[in-house]
Amino acid sequence: MVFLATPADVSMELAPRMLDAGAKVIDLSGAFRFADSATYSRWYKEKHTAGELLAEAVYGLPEFCRQRIAGARFISNPGCYPTAANLAIQPLIAAGVVDRACGIVCDAKSGVSGAGRKPSLKTSFSEVTENFTAYAVLDHRHVPEILMVSGIEERELSFTAQLIPIHRGILETIYFRAKNLASAEELLAVYTRRYQGEKFVRLYAPGNLPDIRGVERTNFCDIGVRLDAASGRAVVVSAIDNLGKGAAGQAIQNMNLALSFEETEGLL
Amino acid sequence: MVFLATPADVSMELAPRMLDAGAKVIDLSGAFRFADSATYSRWYKEKHTAGELLAEAVYGLPEFCRQRIAGARFISNPGCYPTAANLAIQPLIAAGVVDRACGIVCDAKSGVSGAGRKPSLKTSFSEVTENFTAYAVLDHRHVPEILMVSGIEERELSFTAQLIPIHRGILETIYFRAKNLASAEELLAVYTRRYQGEKFVRLYAPGNLPDIRGVERTNFCDIGVRLDAASGRAVVVSAIDNLGKGAAGQAIQNMNLALSFEETEGLL
Amino acid sequence: MVFLATPADVSMELAPRMLDAGAKVIDLSGAFRFADSATYSRWYKEKHTAGELLAEAVYGLPEFCRQRIAGARFISNPGCYPTAANLAIQPLIAAGVVDRACGIVCDAKSGVSGAGRKPSLKTSFSEVTENFTAYAVLDHRHVPEILMVSGIEERELSFTAQLIPIHRGILETIYFRAKNLASAEELLAVYTRRYQGEKFVRLYAPGNLPDIRGVERTNFCDIGVRLDAASGRAVVVSAIDNLGKGAAGQAIQNMNLALSFEETEGLL
Amino acid sequence: MVFLATPADVSMELAPRMLDAGAKVIDLSGAFRFADSATYSRWYKEKHTAGELLAEAVYGLPEFCRQRIAGARFISNPGCYPTAANLAIQPLIAAGVVDRACGIVCDAKSGVSGAGRKPSLKTSFSEVTENFTAYAVLDHRHVPEILMVSGIEERELSFTAQLIPIHRGILETIYFRAKNLASAEELLAVYTRRYQGEKFVRLYAPGNLPDIRGVERTNFCDIGVRLDAASGRAVVVSAIDNLGKGAAGQAIQNMNLALSFEETEGLL
Repeated sequence: MVFLATPADVSMELAPRMLDAGAKVIDLSGAFRFADSATYSRWYKEKHTAGELLAEAVYGLPEFCRQRIAGARFISNPGCYPTAANLAIQPLIAAGVVDRACGIVCDAKSGVSGAGRKPSLKTSFSEVTENFTAYAVLDHRHVPEILMVSGIEERELSFTAQLIPIHRGILETIYFRAKNLASAEELLAVYTRRYQGEKFVRLYAPGNLPDIRGVERTNFCDIGVRLDAASGRAVVVSAIDNLGKGAAGQAIQNMNLALSFEETEGLL
Repeated sequence: MVFLATPADVSMELAPRMLDAGAKVIDLSGAFRFADSATYSRWYKEKHTAGELLAEAVYGLPEFCRQRIAGARFISNPGCYPTAANLAIQPLIAAGVVDRACGIVCDAKSGVSGAGRKPSLKTSFSEVTENFTAYAVLDHRHVPEILMVSGIEERELSFTAQLIPIHRGILETIYFRAKNLASAEELLAVYTRRYQGEKFVRLYAPGNLPDIRGVERTNFCDIGVRLDAASGRAVVVSAIDNLGKGAAGQAIQNMNLALSFEETEGLL
Repeated sequence: MVFLATPADVSMELAPRMLDAGAKVIDLSGAFRFADSATYSRWYKEKHTAGELLAEAVYGLPEFCRQRIAGARFISNPGCYPTAANLAIQPLIAAGVVDRACGIVCDAKSGVSGAGRKPSLKTSFSEVTENFTAYAVLDHRHVPEILMVSGIEERELSFTAQLIPIHRGILETIYFRAKNLASAEELLAVYTRRYQGEKFVRLYAPGNLPDIRGVERTNFCDIGVRLDAASGRAVVVSAIDNLGKGAAGQAIQNMNLALSFEETEGLL
Repeated sequence: MVFLATPADVSMELAPRMLDAGAKVIDLSGAFRFADSATYSRWYKEKHTAGELLAEAVYGLPEFCRQRIAGARFISNPGCYPTAANLAIQPLIAAGVVDRACGIVCDAKSGVSGAGRKPSLKTSFSEVTENFTAYAVLDHRHVPEILMVSGIEERELSFTAQLIPIHRGILETIYFRAKNLASAEELLAVYTRRYQGEKFVRLYAPGNLPDIRGVERTNFCDIGVRLDAASGRAVVVSAIDNLGKGAAGQAIQNMNLALSFEETEGLL
C-alpha cells in the first residue's frame, strides 16, 4: 500500500506507475477525486494527465463509500474542507430538510497546516499570528468535491475558506433555511439516523457545539446543530482535524478498509 | 465628557447621576442602545433601571447618526459586532439588493478582548490557543442592535459569534442572495455611494478582501465584496478592530462630534 | 492508588486521610517534596500541617529514586521546573565538571498551563499572547527542589522563571563554567553514562538541541549540550512537557513503579 | 538620506554608490558594524567587499555614540540583540560591578520577525506556534557587536538566541556575579547615572521587571534589575521591540540626529 502525499501533478505521474507495479495506492492529492477530467481541469487549472484512472479511483469517504473502498486497489483520499462539509450537508439534502431555493452557506475556517508545508509568505508566522483572513470566496478548488458528494448545485453553495492562526483543525459553520423540521431535536435526528454505528462521527446534543480542540489529533468529525424552528434558520457546526479525518487519519481509515483491518486500527 | 466603560447595570446607575451633575456622557455598555426597555430586558436578561433616559440616548454610529450625535449630551456607543455588521448590511437593505426571503447570514469572528478583561476559564490562554469556538449561535445579545440599524427582521438574520485565538479584531463574513445586481462592481457601488466622504470606512476593489491585520489599532471599518452575478451568490467581508471602531475608537469619534472637534482628531 | 492534583494545603489535609484509609497516594502538589517542614514554610509561605508524613514521602523522580519508589505507598511527584533542571544539573555536579565558584544559571521558560487552570489576569489570553515575561527571578518556590536533588547551594544557583505564549512545555537553558572537559563529546558523555538504559531521557548529539515541540505530549526529557572547551563556556538545554514528565506523565511513571507495572505502561 | 534594509552583501554593493552619489546612508545590515573586515568575515562567513568604508561608518547606538552620529553621512544601524544587550551590559562593565572571572550570561529571546521576512520552514507558522527553540548558542553573529560595545571578551560571554512564538519583541535575561554592590538599588543606580536624560531608556524600580508587551511598537529599551547581595547573584532584564529600537525605530532616531531633527521626532 503506497500513500501519495504529493502535489496533484506528481500524483498523476506516480499513481499509474505504482499501480502498474502491483501496489495499492491511496492518493492524498486532488488529482483523482472527480469522475471526469474536465472538472479537474476547471478547478485545478491544469490538464489531467492520467484521466484513464479516474474511473477506477474510489472516493475515500468511508461513511459514504465504505463498500467500494473495501478491497479497492486505488483510493482517492478526500479533501479536508469537503470531508467536514459533506459529512454535515449530505444527510440534510438526502433528508429533504433544506429549502434549496435559498442555498446553503458553508463558512469554513482552517488552521495553517491546511496550506501545506512549503514555505510561503502567506503561511509565515509573522503574517498569520494575530490575523484572520478570508482567502478564497466562492472559487476554492474544494467546491466541486462538496457538490459531487452532497448533491447540491454550484449555484446553491456559498463557500468561503478562511485562515485561523492555529496549526491544525477545521471548523465549518453551515447555514440553511430548514423545511419540515419542528425542532433542533428533529434536525439532530437526521444525523443520528444517518450515522448510527459510525465510529468517527460524533453528534452533539442540542445546546452544545463542537470546537476544534475537541477533534485535535483525532480522526473524529464532530457535528452540532441549532435551529429556530419558527423562522427555519438552521446552523450546523462541523469540526475535524485537517491532518486527521481531513487527511492522514482518513487515509489510514481507508487503508484499514482496503486491507480488511479493523476500521479503527491505529486511529484515535 | 465622561466615558462609561462599565457593565450595563453599573452604567444604568451612573449615567443618570453623571448627566444630572451636568456632564456629557458616552456609555460603552449595552444599556442605552435601544429605544425601548423591553428589547433590553429580552436580550440582556435583566430589568432596565434607567428607562427614562432611553429616549434621549443617541446611538453613536456616526456614519448613520452624525447629525444627532453633534451636540448630544448622552451618547450610547454601539457594540462591536453590530458596528461591523451594520456598516456592511444597512446599505444593502437600503439599496434593495438583497433577496430578503432567503435571509442574511452574518458569520462573525472576534478576538478574545471582545469578551472583556475579567478573568475566566473561557478566555484563559490555554483554553483559547490552538482552538476556534462558536460560542453564540442566533441568540447573541448584539443581534437586536443589528436589526435596529440595518432594518431587517430577526427571522431574516442568522448570526453566529465565534472566538479567534487573537487579542483584538473582528471579521464578519456576510452572505445573501443578491437581486438587481449585474456585477461585483455594482455591488461595490452600493457602498461607494453610501460612504462617499466617510473617513473611517475603506472599500476594497473587487478581487481584494480586508483582513484583521489591516484594521488592527485603527478606527477603520474595511469592506470588500464578492458576487457571482449569475446565481446571485453574494459575500461581503467587513473588518474592524473591536477595541477601535468597535469600542474606544468610535467613542473618541463620537466625542469629537459631540464637542465639535475635528472628527478624526486623535484617531488613526 | 490516589492521585492528588490539589493545592498544597488541600493535599496536606487529604493525604493523611487517604493513607489512613489504606490507599496509596501520589501527591502532585509541593506539600511533601522536602525532608523538613522549615524548607516548605520558607518557600511556600505557609505552615506545614502534615509534617509527620514528610519522612515517609518518597520523592518521585524515577531516574534518581527508582529503588525507593518501587513499592512506596506515598510518593511526592516532583515539580515541573525541577524535573527539567535536576535531570540536567545533577549529573554535572556528580561528575565534578562544574566550576562551582561561578555558579550555575538556569534560565527557565514555561508554557501557560504551568500556572494551573484557575482563571487569572496573568494567564488570560489577551495578556499572554504576543508577550514574554520573566515572572520569578531567584525566588521561585521550585528553587529548593533543585538544590535538594542537584546538590548545589542556593548561592550557586541563579534561576529565572519565564512565561512563553504556548499551552504546554518547558525549556531550560543552563549555563556554567566547565572544568575537566576537553570537548562537547566529553560533556555529552557525562549524560550518556548517567542515563544508560533510561527510557525517558533522550540525549542529542553535539550540534543538535532539543525544542519544546519534540517533547510535547510525551514523558521524555530531552537534553542537548554545547561547549567551548577553550573558555569553558558550557550550555545545556533541557526540555520536557510540563504536563507530561513535569506532572501527569511522571505521576503515571511513578504509579507504574509503585505497583510493579512496566515503567513505560500508558506513556508515550 | 537613504535607508538600506538589505542583506549585507547588497548593502556592501549599494552603500558606496549611494554615498558617491551624494546621499547620506543608514545601513541596517550587518555589513558596516565592525572596524575591521576580519571580524566581519569571521562571523558572517563571507569576504567584505567594501572594506574601505568601515573606517567612516559610525555605529548608530545613540546612547553611546551620539556625538559621532550627529552630522554623520554614513551610519551603521546596530543589530537587534546587541542593542538590548549593550544597553544593559556596557554600564555594568564601565562601573566595574561584574566579577568578570565568572563571565556574563545573556539568554536572549526574540520574536519571529527578527529572522527577516523571507519565507522559510523555520519561520512558518506551523513550525513556530506552540514551540520554543534555541537556535544559536555561543556562535550567533551578533556576538561580536556585543563584545565591541560592551568591552568584554568573547570568552566571558555566553550568548544564546532563542525563538519565541510572537511577531515582534526581544527580551534578554542577563546574569552575572556582582561585586561592589550592596543592594538592588545600587545596581539600579549604575543605570540611573548612565541614562540620565536619555529619552528611550526606561528603568524599572526594584521589584518590577520589563516585559515585551511594554515595549511593543515603541523605540524604548526597558531595563529592570534583581540582586541577591549576599551571594552576588545578579539578574538584569532588558526588553526592546526588535523592529523598533532594534531596527527601524533606531534608524529613525539616527536620522534625526544626523539631520539635526529633534531626536524623538516620529518615534513613540
